[in-house]
Amino acid sequence: MTDQAQIADEAARSAARAFQERGLTADEQTIQLLFTEARTHYGWQDRDVAEDTLRALYDIAKMGPTSMNQQPMRVLFIRSTEAKDRLEPALLPGNRPKMRAAPVTAIIAHDLSFWEELPRIFPPNPDAADIFRNNATAAQVNAFRNGTLQGAYFMLAARAVGLDVGAMSGFVNAKVDEEFFHGTSVKSNFLVNLGYADTSKIFRRLPRLAFEDVCQTL
Amino acid sequence: MTDQAQIADEAARSAARAFQERGLTADEQTIQLLFTEARTHYGWQDRDVAEDTLRALYDIAKMGPTSMNQQPMRVLFIRSTEAKDRLEPALLPGNRPKMRAAPVTAIIAHDLSFWEELPRIFPPNPDAADIFRNNATAAQVNAFRNGTLQGAYFMLAARAVGLDVGAMSGFVNAKVDEEFFHGTSVKSNFLVNLGYADTSKIFRRLPRLAFEDVCQTL
Repeated sequence: MTDQAQIADEAARSAARAFQERGLTADEQTIQLLFTEARTHYGWQDRDVAEDTLRALYDIAKMGPTSMNQQPMRVLFIRSTEAKDRLEPALLPGNRPKMRAAPVTAIIAHDLSFWEELPRIFPPNPDAADIFRNNATAAQVNAFRNGTLQGAYFMLAARAVGLDVGAMSGFVNAKVDEEFFHGTSVKSNFLVNLGYADTSKIFRRLPRLAFEDVCQTL
Repeated sequence: MTDQAQIADEAARSAARAFQERGLTADEQTIQLLFTEARTHYGWQDRDVAEDTLRALYDIAKMGPTSMNQQPMRVLFIRSTEAKDRLEPALLPGNRPKMRAAPVTAIIAHDLSFWEELPRIFPPNPDAADIFRNNATAAQVNAFRNGTLQGAYFMLAARAVGLDVGAMSGFVNAKVDEEFFHGTSVKSNFLVNLGYADTSKIFRRLPRLAFEDVCQTL
């Protein structure tokens, strides 16, 4: 290891130690904003989303962890009427007006060839790409798992910057792939409507499973 | 719709409107705690994680959105030496000491029969279970996608309550399933070491893909 690399590692450890010593837990209002008071939205105000807000969103979301720093997520922001016209036929009819009313619909996708970037983004193992090069199943499972983790980071980061979100998986993935990602290794995962919600369109909260239903300790 | 349901819907709308009127964005320290200063950890202090902390974690994570409120995630907290002995052979050798040193390793899993709960947890469509009952592929894709979203919520919620996390997918899922979920419809997804980090074990941060590499607007 070079001196420079050692210095960078030691700086990272010092920063982590200093942050840990602050003993933080999350601010209660932010927990509400990201999780406990946040709602999935179906209706949207006629108010645009600034490009800078999308960049701020991504700059938070990109820091969430992925296996071997894979970062397979790719995002297509559908904003224009032309792009919405292309997306609409792939959606279940009930989801079309939600997409139409939202200022932006993000197609959360993942690149099955994400591993081509690994030499650059995962320097600890210069041969990491070989794990996936001739193993399409491993590439697919990793792209789907880690791209979905990033999709979750994306939604929470959107809320963090003050946007409302409404995710949708009621659409035909193959149609979206054919229309937007034809001839590429990118596959659609799910959609996220983004904007400022019309709160009059929501319903009461749906029940959540209890700790005892979901968690067990051994 | 009953009067009671209408009242519940209106109360939910009022609450969402009141929360929206506060115009919040996330507290900067909390963004750091959850995303930008947080690190994936490999080493752990000899300090236990309270059961109440895991419950607080779950109570935040459970509020994250899933398609049709599916909530397919199931979590097995591995704490005892006996349970760690059972988990260890499934892990890649490099991941074994990380798991051994952590006070808790969560097996993030999902139930392929999650849809059996839908009549109870997704009352808006009493027939939603029929979508998955005879469609194993749809059940698998939905369990994996939504269980993974919940796994991301789980990791961020862990950070929110002051825990450090270190996720691992370097293990043989089939071995974990055979050892812990044999004869059930539950399948392992990935592992999350939980505890209070030994910050001396980390390295410098890995590079993230730029907005321009990942995002496009149409």
